Amino acid sequence: MNVMRSNLILCLLVPIVVCQSGFSQNTLQERLGYSVDAKVVIIHADDLGVAHAENTASIDALENGSVTSASAMVPCPWFREVAEYAKANDGKHDLGLHLTVTCEWKNYKWGPVASLDQVSTLVDSVGHFHSDCASFAEGLDLEELEIELTAQVEKAISMGLNPTHLDTHMGCLFFQNPQIFEIYLNLGKKYGLPAFVSEDLFAIYPALKTMMSDDDILIKKVYSASPRDFAAGMSQYYEKVLRSLQPGLSIVIIHAALDSPEMQAITVDHPDWGAAWRQAEYDFFISDDCKKIIQEEGIHLVTWREVGQLTK
Amino acid sequence: MNVMRSNLILCLLVPIVVCQSGFSQNTLQERLGYSVDAKVVIIHADDLGVAHAENTASIDALENGSVTSASAMVPCPWFREVAEYAKANDGKHDLGLHLTVTCEWKNYKWGPVASLDQVSTLVDSVGHFHSDCASFAEGLDLEELEIELTAQVEKAISMGLNPTHLDTHMGCLFFQNPQIFEIYLNLGKKYGLPAFVSEDLFAIYPALKTMMSDDDILIKKVYSASPRDFAAGMSQYYEKVLRSLQPGLSIVIIHAALDSPEMQAITVDHPDWGAAWRQAEYDFFISDDCKKIIQEEGIHLVTWREVGQLTK
Repeated sequence: MNVMRSNLILCLLVPIVVCQSGFSQNTLQERLGYSVDAKVVIIHADDLGVAHAENTASIDALENGSVTSASAMVPCPWFREVAEYAKANDGKHDLGLHLTVTCEWKNYKWGPVASLDQVSTLVDSVGHFHSDCASFAEGLDLEELEIELTAQVEKAISMGLNPTHLDTHMGCLFFQNPQIFEIYLNLGKKYGLPAFVSEDLFAIYPALKTMMSDDDILIKKVYSASPRDFAAGMSQYYEKVLRSLQPGLSIVIIHAALDSPEMQAITVDHPDWGAAWRQAEYDFFISDDCKKIIQEEGIHLVTWREVGQLTK
Repeated sequence: MNVMRSNLILCLLVPIVVCQSGFSQNTLQERLGYSVDAKVVIIHADDLGVAHAENTASIDALENGSVTSASAMVPCPWFREVAEYAKANDGKHDLGLHLTVTCEWKNYKWGPVASLDQVSTLVDSVGHFHSDCASFAEGLDLEELEIELTAQVEKAISMGLNPTHLDTHMGCLFFQNPQIFEIYLNLGKKYGLPAFVSEDLFAIYPALKTMMSDDDILIKKVYSASPRDFAAGMSQYYEKVLRSLQPGLSIVIIHAALDSPEMQAITVDHPDWGAAWRQAEYDFFISDDCKKIIQEEGIHLVTWREVGQLTK
């Protein structure tokens, strides 16, 4: 190889190396094209598919409000409505999968996507998912979990919803044990999808941090109303969140639905994350007030699709 | 044996024989304790479990209206609400099982109770029931049908609903082939439950009549609104039905629900048996007008529980 040729190769390689090195050191907001001190946020609606009232409000908030991304529960009866929307919407709005391993409501039930006898540890005596994360994790066969989560992704794709990202209903895939978390992360890798994880998680479960690779997206901060915030007023809470947002990539997680008889019946005896709660979140994130605050605070709204591009 | 003793035995036997002979020849209305010319009717609400709006209206019509009996769809997401009602209701109102092998709505889906891989011919490519009876019957494995129907009965019982009778959603277990009908009849026998069959059926499928035994209950006449009746006015149709009822045991089959956003979304693009249709049937059968007509016409309302007692 002559000197000229080797110099040429060096010249071609150097910027690539510099770029890659810079790439890995840059903050997520910079990699998304913003300055290091930019406040960048995904406003995310969970639980699509659970009810028509949830789909109606969430899709409206995606189309006309400040919500930038949403995720749907494949095992739920109203998932077809989301899939049909996804096909008609043709990728215009972010839609991910809210991987579901529980069924928390009193009188309204669903079960797994996979064949019952392949996932028997995921269900109760009549074939419904368990009602909370602790019951889900107790006696869980990890292979069965992988079968079910894969079945949810495959069903969504076969019904016409090509997900932009993955997350986890009720956080059940976060809080139980590292092996569950690993299955969740690997599912994202298998399908080339960002799987929602935030730094807050590691304050609770430090062991999980070691399982993250450099390629994984790590959201800096999660904001989501607690029962105390709901009691004090949803709009006050979210205005405070948006006004006090710190630089970096954050996520605001809401549950938008109409406070209708359907939603009231689903959430009966459960005011927290209930129908009025969901209507209040919807009301705020569809409002002009919310848009004004976002503009005044110089907040940049982004989607999971944009974030996912960083991992390609 | 002396003459006196043989006469005594004869005296004891004769009324029994007469009674038994009379029993088998008596009409259903007589066996229920009415005269041969009595107009006896079960007013029946189908489709409980499909939606909260359906449960709300149907239970109200059972408790406060003229509906005497109802049946629920075990695979549907709102079945738990019916089962909880059944437990609280403690057998006060008739509740049967509306055996379900289809899933007819556009954006709202459910699948089998049995494990998917045991009933693969009953489902479409994503694990939902087929949308109509013809698709259900095409390529059906009869053993799989038996597995699924048995699973529905067992699930209902294990959730606290002890059914008073069986019938068939969309009539799919009637109209396809004699082997399907036989599975349906045998399921009733297995669980000691009357399975709804009417004489009208044999006008369409004469071959099915040969499969009935003397023990089976045979309803004389079925009345249920058609799209033309709905278009002309539900209350006019049902008033005419009740005013022109013939002697014998008849059944009036309705679908009672609220014309709510939930029901409108479930029945979207399907005005026949849609939300307004169901509200109109509910309105009539909860009305004082309906009660007045029943009284004026001397109609006797009965339940499937009473009818089922005839087979014990």
